[in-house]
Amino acid sequence: MNSHADSVGSDHIHQFLVRIYFEDTDVAGIVYHANYLKFMERGRAEWLRELGFDQSVLTKIYNIVFVVAALNVNFRKPAIIDEKLVVKTSIHKIGFASIELKQVLENERSEINCHGLVRLGCVNRTSLRVMRIPGEIKERIHYVD
Amino acid sequence: MNSHADSVGSDHIHQFLVRIYFEDTDVAGIVYHANYLKFMERGRAEWLRELGFDQSVLTKIYNIVFVVAALNVNFRKPAIIDEKLVVKTSIHKIGFASIELKQVLENERSEINCHGLVRLGCVNRTSLRVMRIPGEIKERIHYVD
Amino acid sequence: MNSHADSVGSDHIHQFLVRIYFEDTDVAGIVYHANYLKFMERGRAEWLRELGFDQSVLTKIYNIVFVVAALNVNFRKPAIIDEKLVVKTSIHKIGFASIELKQVLENERSEINCHGLVRLGCVNRTSLRVMRIPGEIKERIHYVD
Amino acid sequence: MNSHADSVGSDHIHQFLVRIYFEDTDVAGIVYHANYLKFMERGRAEWLRELGFDQSVLTKIYNIVFVVAALNVNFRKPAIIDEKLVVKTSIHKIGFASIELKQVLENERSEINCHGLVRLGCVNRTSLRVMRIPGEIKERIHYVD
Repeated sequence: MNSHADSVGSDHIHQFLVRIYFEDTDVAGIVYHANYLKFMERGRAEWLRELGFDQSVLTKIYNIVFVVAALNVNFRKPAIIDEKLVVKTSIHKIGFASIELKQVLENERSEINCHGLVRLGCVNRTSLRVMRIPGEIKERIHYVD
Repeated sequence: MNSHADSVGSDHIHQFLVRIYFEDTDVAGIVYHANYLKFMERGRAEWLRELGFDQSVLTKIYNIVFVVAALNVNFRKPAIIDEKLVVKTSIHKIGFASIELKQVLENERSEINCHGLVRLGCVNRTSLRVMRIPGEIKERIHYVD
Repeated sequence: MNSHADSVGSDHIHQFLVRIYFEDTDVAGIVYHANYLKFMERGRAEWLRELGFDQSVLTKIYNIVFVVAALNVNFRKPAIIDEKLVVKTSIHKIGFASIELKQVLENERSEINCHGLVRLGCVNRTSLRVMRIPGEIKERIHYVD
Repeated sequence: MNSHADSVGSDHIHQFLVRIYFEDTDVAGIVYHANYLKFMERGRAEWLRELGFDQSVLTKIYNIVFVVAALNVNFRKPAIIDEKLVVKTSIHKIGFASIELKQVLENERSEINCHGLVRLGCVNRTSLRVMRIPGEIKERIHYVD
């Protein structure tokens, strides 16, 4: 799309909506912290799906799976039941065998619920050993930039 | 190991303790209903483990997995955070390819939180097709009666 | 809407789509059984929301919450990651303080993943004591029939 | 109870065991990443309980709740079903209204599954506004050092 395919400082932000249900809340009346990570993963899954890489493609064609290698998340404003959050996903960095994504969750008043960096490792589906990210996936990620 | 191996009207009740944490609760201040089913499964897993059948044995030796085929559960008294519940598991019925278990969850004052019947199907680990319960498992289950 | 407001043998079926993500699956490669119950609750929440009763309304205006009192669910065909299921919710019975719903989960090939009856009890939000279902809610439920 | 009460560079490490069940795993055959955070919280809850501060004490006596304010976690070796992990919790830093804990999860071969820092904020149970950590809690935390 542009001549700077290696540049991932793209403005492209994938957006995906999630709704808060009972299952997501805890006795403190707010979303249980670990559940934001589920929302983040739904956002990543939809981002990959839109690029053409749902799990069946990753598994059957490439025999890979992306696993979470590191998380760095700050929780700002608790979300509550019935709220609709937008999960914003953008590329922070792409390496040989890993992708680092920036993810932000915001409510309908554009208040940030939490935000952070998630590093995904590309691993062999069977052995779970580190693998190079397939070229097609890398290209497609760059293409949308 | 008695002469009435087919009789499962045993008095044997397996007991397993679970503690309620934040993750288990919801905004209503009580345990989220679907989470009791997780406690029930922990009880079943520990019951099978004590009989010698943890998941690695079921997978590697028998290539089977027990899947939940039916649930019939009544919820009586909500459990809350910090509570310790006992999961009581006993055999209700054993068939060719299924086991029906009776499970009761009680708090420390012996109040019933919920109780019900869970039918497990024995299926091939790979194909998920129905399989006969291996003889050794059936015998071991009867033996503890 | 009709003269038989008490009849709940309505053909009205609420439909809601859910997508299967990593969080929903287990090591057997399929959706973890208790997670179907989460999908069912999302379906119920959206059904109530469309009738005008989201949780904030139920809490602030009526001070009630619907809790699951009984479940009777049969699991038929395991769902897998990436699948899109439709949660079909219809009224089976309405009582003084409880609603019984029929819920069916189907995949995109109209195969039934699981189906069952869920009885909800209407309880006081604070005391969790049984309460009469507010007339407006009952009427609205009948109205859609 | 030494003269260096402010020093939190303690060697005291709280240990708590968790078992991996079906509910914790995903289709990749390993523990779903967000579920390690649940194990970490169980470890923190048991650490606080042993110090005399279970949730009912925090709620009724102090009207506070500790919420997760930030997470920085590295995932190293995936855990699998049936495994028993130890959750090691120790104090990294105590501030006016927050506690930073170091947490490490290890399997029975002392391999690290994941490790990281979790910052907890002390907030008012009702308003969720930041509050000073009660003196008794701070003292008790130092006492165990």
